[in-house]
Amino acid sequence: MSLKPSIPKGTRDFSAKELAKRNYLKIILKNAFESFAFEPLETPSFEKTSTLTGKYGEEGDRLIFKILNSGEKLKKADLKSLKNNNLKKFSNSLSEKALRYDLTVPFARYVSSHQNDLIFPYRRYQIQNVWRADRPQYGRFQEFCQCDADIVGDKSLWQEVEMISLCDRVFNDLKLTGATIKINHRNIIEGICKLMGEEANLIDFTIAVDKYHKVGLKGVEKELIDKGFSEKAINKIKPIIGLKGSALGVLKKIESIFNENGIEIKGVDDLRFIFNIIDKNNLKSTKLSLDLTLARGLNYYTGMIIEVLPPDSFKIGSIGGGGRYDDLTSSFGMKKTSGIGFSFGFDRIFLVLDELNLFPENISKNSKILFLNFNSKCTEIAYKCLDKLRSKNIVSELYPSQVKLSKQLSYANKKKIPFVVIIGDEEIEKNQFVLKDMISGNQISKPIANLFKILVDISHF
Amino acid sequence: MSLKPSIPKGTRDFSAKELAKRNYLKIILKNAFESFAFEPLETPSFEKTSTLTGKYGEEGDRLIFKILNSGEKLKKADLKSLKNNNLKKFSNSLSEKALRYDLTVPFARYVSSHQNDLIFPYRRYQIQNVWRADRPQYGRFQEFCQCDADIVGDKSLWQEVEMISLCDRVFNDLKLTGATIKINHRNIIEGICKLMGEEANLIDFTIAVDKYHKVGLKGVEKELIDKGFSEKAINKIKPIIGLKGSALGVLKKIESIFNENGIEIKGVDDLRFIFNIIDKNNLKSTKLSLDLTLARGLNYYTGMIIEVLPPDSFKIGSIGGGGRYDDLTSSFGMKKTSGIGFSFGFDRIFLVLDELNLFPENISKNSKILFLNFNSKCTEIAYKCLDKLRSKNIVSELYPSQVKLSKQLSYANKKKIPFVVIIGDEEIEKNQFVLKDMISGNQISKPIANLFKILVDISHF
Repeated sequence: MSLKPSIPKGTRDFSAKELAKRNYLKIILKNAFESFAFEPLETPSFEKTSTLTGKYGEEGDRLIFKILNSGEKLKKADLKSLKNNNLKKFSNSLSEKALRYDLTVPFARYVSSHQNDLIFPYRRYQIQNVWRADRPQYGRFQEFCQCDADIVGDKSLWQEVEMISLCDRVFNDLKLTGATIKINHRNIIEGICKLMGEEANLIDFTIAVDKYHKVGLKGVEKELIDKGFSEKAINKIKPIIGLKGSALGVLKKIESIFNENGIEIKGVDDLRFIFNIIDKNNLKSTKLSLDLTLARGLNYYTGMIIEVLPPDSFKIGSIGGGGRYDDLTSSFGMKKTSGIGFSFGFDRIFLVLDELNLFPENISKNSKILFLNFNSKCTEIAYKCLDKLRSKNIVSELYPSQVKLSKQLSYANKKKIPFVVIIGDEEIEKNQFVLKDMISGNQISKPIANLFKILVDISHF
Repeated sequence: MSLKPSIPKGTRDFSAKELAKRNYLKIILKNAFESFAFEPLETPSFEKTSTLTGKYGEEGDRLIFKILNSGEKLKKADLKSLKNNNLKKFSNSLSEKALRYDLTVPFARYVSSHQNDLIFPYRRYQIQNVWRADRPQYGRFQEFCQCDADIVGDKSLWQEVEMISLCDRVFNDLKLTGATIKINHRNIIEGICKLMGEEANLIDFTIAVDKYHKVGLKGVEKELIDKGFSEKAINKIKPIIGLKGSALGVLKKIESIFNENGIEIKGVDDLRFIFNIIDKNNLKSTKLSLDLTLARGLNYYTGMIIEVLPPDSFKIGSIGGGGRYDDLTSSFGMKKTSGIGFSFGFDRIFLVLDELNLFPENISKNSKILFLNFNSKCTEIAYKCLDKLRSKNIVSELYPSQVKLSKQLSYANKKKIPFVVIIGDEEIEKNQFVLKDMISGNQISKPIANLFKILVDISHF
């Protein structure tokens, strides 16, 4: 049967050219993680369904790819649920395993089950694919790469500083300047809610305020009023949201407002510590910016919250984010373990680097040298030399068959191989070889005795 | 809800220690592939079910992990098939995508769909995980890594030579000596069948003869007789199976027997070419050995067949295999494309290296330096230095909180961090730091001005 081959929507094949770039980005991340003493971890592509469900909210659960049971187990299909249109229950009766939806839950599962052999604070990084049954669109895929760094088992604010330094290190190594690390603290958001007398509506508040940069203060106000916040309450916080000036200055003002109203200032203290250290050490490529409207995934974070935005010209949202969490492993029976994590948005960072031409040239491992193929004496010399070049990791190849010269040269041209070695009958008679520079078209004759040495020399260009 | 966390059977978590070894092996494979001018390729983890099914035989199809459709699509469940116990049809009604079962079929799919933009001969390597719903056992997993190299679009026997050289290169780089590359040719097996007058029963013959090393000649004979081969036919081939001596000598004898019986000698010619080239170039770590009973997956291979066995002491079967195929892409509508491939058995090679202690020491990227944490002056100096060390990819960390000395030292000990830097009140007063060698226990005082330089120097040990 002949099929028109294609791949599922939202998935990608990666050719050598794309992989060279992806690999460049991965190596920079890996080196940064490792220099910061994060240890690598890899978890299985699929977990037990029970490990994943209930961790990502209703919407998240719906986007988890489930693996169909095989063989006789299929007979356990819960047909009654299907009939009752309970598709969730029906699918659970057909599946016991599911593909990794993120790296955080498998990490929490790993930490919980290895809590007795890990050394805390445990710092791990993980660069692996995750899968989501999301509708594919520009920059959004069903299979994509996540790059996470987490530290668990320690509450020191130095870990917050580490995460910000790590971000800066990565973007500096990538030569990407102008990214902004926005920072906020759950405790400050809680304080603001308290100030309004709306502690009970924290989630509604954060959902509204998170849209500040899209809809402006007016938009946030409107949403809050729609949700039942009083105008009086909103007026109380306007001066805070509108605070201008240095981060330390703004924090000082918040502190005095909170103090006046008997509100806890832990968040202010934490951020002040962080800004003080960062100010002393200077970030290289990014800037740290206090943003009192930043609230990403608040029901998850318990302390500092950060998010990285690309340089101003890019309108693709955040290229990374993270924060402090205090209760990640409790659903796996390991209570009160504080942690902090950051996730780099691999595909979005890739798009930014590509757009700005920040991928270095010559990262593809193209063949440097092609030996043309004329006769068995020629191939004998070529193959011995090839073996030595390859031992030195010099990428090189022999044209596999004795076809006409033009076809062999055309192969070198198409593959952009810079040097071609010709050892034809004439050359063998003179104990020479011809080296052809495929870019300039120049060619020189040299003694065969020097073949290896000359090829090693040119391969460094 | 509290769950006891565990992972699905047949899957694995990889800690830093294991990943250091796996990474070592991957880098050696990658360097070898790239030196031989193979380009990397990565394909999606899941393919359309129709791309995969029907390619691996009935047994293979059963072992493919299918992904359950989500949402409304579940309503298309073919309940009639379930009722009729046609589980295959039932599962197909619930799934449109399936996890990669090997790298060969996705590769064939890729080549077919990119046949107009690829440059042939196209050489690609692919190192990715595959998934099989196989019963887990020692050394067999449901998720495991495959490492394949293929060349398509060329029939030259130089490609066969390349594959053998590649094998030798990899095992030489791994310092694994004593592996044997067994070689045979489909055309020779066909010739032997013809000699018996049993061309029609080629598959039965290969299944029987493939067991030669397990059951011996008697065993093979018995199976052939059970399958209806005549004693007369079997006697005709006994002298061939029993041939002793050099490969070229054996090939010569086969040639004369085939010639006497009017049987094609293409297989003999091919193998003679290969042995001649290999003999001239000397394999470094492996030996090439003609094995007329080697028949792996014959319905797939059309020319040379090879298989690598580990050193004699290991009884774990082959650690790699491959061969020439002529029709891999035709099921995707691309006819008559000859190719050759080889697959390294990553997990089995890993077991062999581990058993023989062939993984180098010090491949883990452990922290080299820990700065202890006493006060804010100390951390300020430490953090500035840390930043510079990490820019040089020297793995280093700061103990995150000001706990008592013994706890901080115990952390360094447990994590096997070789050097610890102490900048306490006393040291700050003298403008000095103490460097403690955690292995010898020795410690020295040095001026803080030299901190960075001294740490860079010791980190090279």
